[in-house]
Amino acid sequence: MKVVSTIAGLREASAALLSGQREPSFGLVPTMGALHSGHAELARAAARENTVVAASIFVNPLQFGDPSDLERYPRSLEADVELLAEAGVKLVFAPEVTEMYPAGEPMVRLSSGVLGTVFEGASRPGHFDGALTVVAKLLHAGTPALGSYRAYFGQKDAQQLALVRRMVADLNFPVQIVGVPTVRAEDGLALSSRNRFLSASERQAALVLSRALRLLVGRAERREPLDLDSAVALVRSEPLVELDYFEVVNPATLAPLAENCRETPFNGQALALIAAKVGSVRLIDNMPLG
Amino acid sequence: MKVVSTIAGLREASAALLSGQREPSFGLVPTMGALHSGHAELARAAARENTVVAASIFVNPLQFGDPSDLERYPRSLEADVELLAEAGVKLVFAPEVTEMYPAGEPMVRLSSGVLGTVFEGASRPGHFDGALTVVAKLLHAGTPALGSYRAYFGQKDAQQLALVRRMVADLNFPVQIVGVPTVRAEDGLALSSRNRFLSASERQAALVLSRALRLLVGRAERREPLDLDSAVALVRSEPLVELDYFEVVNPATLAPLAENCRETPFNGQALALIAAKVGSVRLIDNMPLG
Repeated sequence: MKVVSTIAGLREASAALLSGQREPSFGLVPTMGALHSGHAELARAAARENTVVAASIFVNPLQFGDPSDLERYPRSLEADVELLAEAGVKLVFAPEVTEMYPAGEPMVRLSSGVLGTVFEGASRPGHFDGALTVVAKLLHAGTPALGSYRAYFGQKDAQQLALVRRMVADLNFPVQIVGVPTVRAEDGLALSSRNRFLSASERQAALVLSRALRLLVGRAERREPLDLDSAVALVRSEPLVELDYFEVVNPATLAPLAENCRETPFNGQALALIAAKVGSVRLIDNMPLG
Repeated sequence: MKVVSTIAGLREASAALLSGQREPSFGLVPTMGALHSGHAELARAAARENTVVAASIFVNPLQFGDPSDLERYPRSLEADVELLAEAGVKLVFAPEVTEMYPAGEPMVRLSSGVLGTVFEGASRPGHFDGALTVVAKLLHAGTPALGSYRAYFGQKDAQQLALVRRMVADLNFPVQIVGVPTVRAEDGLALSSRNRFLSASERQAALVLSRALRLLVGRAERREPLDLDSAVALVRSEPLVELDYFEVVNPATLAPLAENCRETPFNGQALALIAAKVGSVRLIDNMPLG
C-alpha cells in the first residue's frame, strides 16, 4: 500500500502501477474517510473490476455550510488505510486542504443546477456545488495515463450519485461511474459514519427508516399501489424520529413520481428516498423500487 | 485528414493515430469555425509540439445570449477543414448540436465566478459560463487514451484564455493550456471573423485600437508611466469608434492595476485590454506589457 499526498504523486504512482499491464484498468474510490464496511464494499467492487485501485481520503471544506460541522467531522487516517488495504486498494491519495485548494477557494466551480436544490440540497444550500467541484477535481487528478477508468460511489448517497452521473454525462468526463449498493447492519440500518452518534434508543428508533422503505419495496414487488401515505404514517408514529422528506422519485432526475404512478398497481422503476432527524442526528436512506 | 462528428469517433480516431508512437502527444485546438490565419497559427503551434493534432469546429449555442447572433454566426466547414489540413491537423471533430447536447441544455455546468462577470462578461451575462462548459466538454471529449495532452487557445480572447487557465488549475484538468500570440493584419488589426463586417472606413477607424495598445507597449518598454488617459483620448478622438473599456490588468486575474503601478515608471507584467464598437461591429484586442 502506497499513501501519497500530492496530485503529482498520485499520477506518478498510478502510472507506475499500470505500466506494463496487458489490459490496464484503474478504479478510483473517492471518500471523506471515517471509513466503515460500506466503503470497504466500494473498494472491493473496484478491486474486482480493475487491475489497480486507488482511494482518496479528503474532507472537502467546500461542501460544508457550517464550519463547526467541518471541524467535528471524524478523521481516522490510520484505520482507514488499513481497511482499504484489506479491501484490495493499492494506492491512497490523502491530500491536505492546501494541496487541493492552493489558491484558497476555487473561482471556477461546478454548478449543480436544479437537481442540487431539492431534497438534501434544500437544507444544505451550496452543498452539491461544493461536492461536484471536489469530485471533478478528484476525477481529473485520478485520470490514469493509460487504460480504462472507473469511479465508485455508494448508492446510499443517492442524490450525490445522481448528480455525479449527470455531471459526467453533461460534461463528457472520460470515466465510467459505478454505483455500489448500500451496506446495512443486520438490523437493517444503512451504514453511515453518523450512526456512531446515535444513543441506544435512537438507534432502535432509526430502524423505522429502513422498515418504511422495505414496506414500499414489498408493495412494488407485489405490484400493489405503493400507498406512500401509510409508510409516512409509520415513520411519524416513532416519537424520536422527525421526518424531513419521504418521496418516490425517478432515479436519474429525482423528479417525484406522479400520483397515479404510485397509486395504481406499481409497475415501474423508481427510488424511494427518506431523510429524518433521529435525536440530533440527521440520517438519509433509500431503496430502489421495481 | 479525418473528419468525425461523434465523441466516440474522436476518441477512437485519436487512439488509432497515437497508438504505437514512441512518445505520443496530443494537441487539441478548439474552434467555432469561420477560420482565418489566426486559427491556422494555433494549429501550426499545436503541430510543432505534438505528434497528433485534432481541431474541433463547433458553434456553441450555450455561449450566445442572443439567438439571432447565433444564427448569423458564419459557418464554412469545407474551407475550415482545408485550412486545418494545411496547418498540420490530422483529425477534425465537427459535431452537431445534438451530439454535444443530446439531452438539451446541460444541467450541470461550469460557473466562471467573478472573472466571468467583468469586461466581456459585463456585456454578455452567462457567456463565459457557457464557454467554459463547452471547453470542459471538449477537453474531456479530447482526452487521449495515452500520451501527453495540450490544448491551444488564442491570446486574442484574453479573458477566455485567463478563464480556461483558471478552470484547468482550479479543477485539475489533466491538460496543459497553451496560449498562442494574436495574429495581425499588416496594418495592425487583430484578425477576427468579425472583421469581414467592417466597411472600408470602419476598418480604417478600427486601427486606432491596435495603435492605442502599441502606445502603451512602447511606454512600458521605455519604462515610462503608462499614461492610460492619453491612450483613451486617442481612441475617443476617432468618431467611428465607441469605446467600451480600455484597461491595464493583471494577466491572470484581470484585476486592474493600481493607479500608482500605471503612473510611476512602468516596471511590471500586465495586459492592456480594449473593447470598442466600430460602426455596428464590436471588436476586442489586447497586448502584453512588460
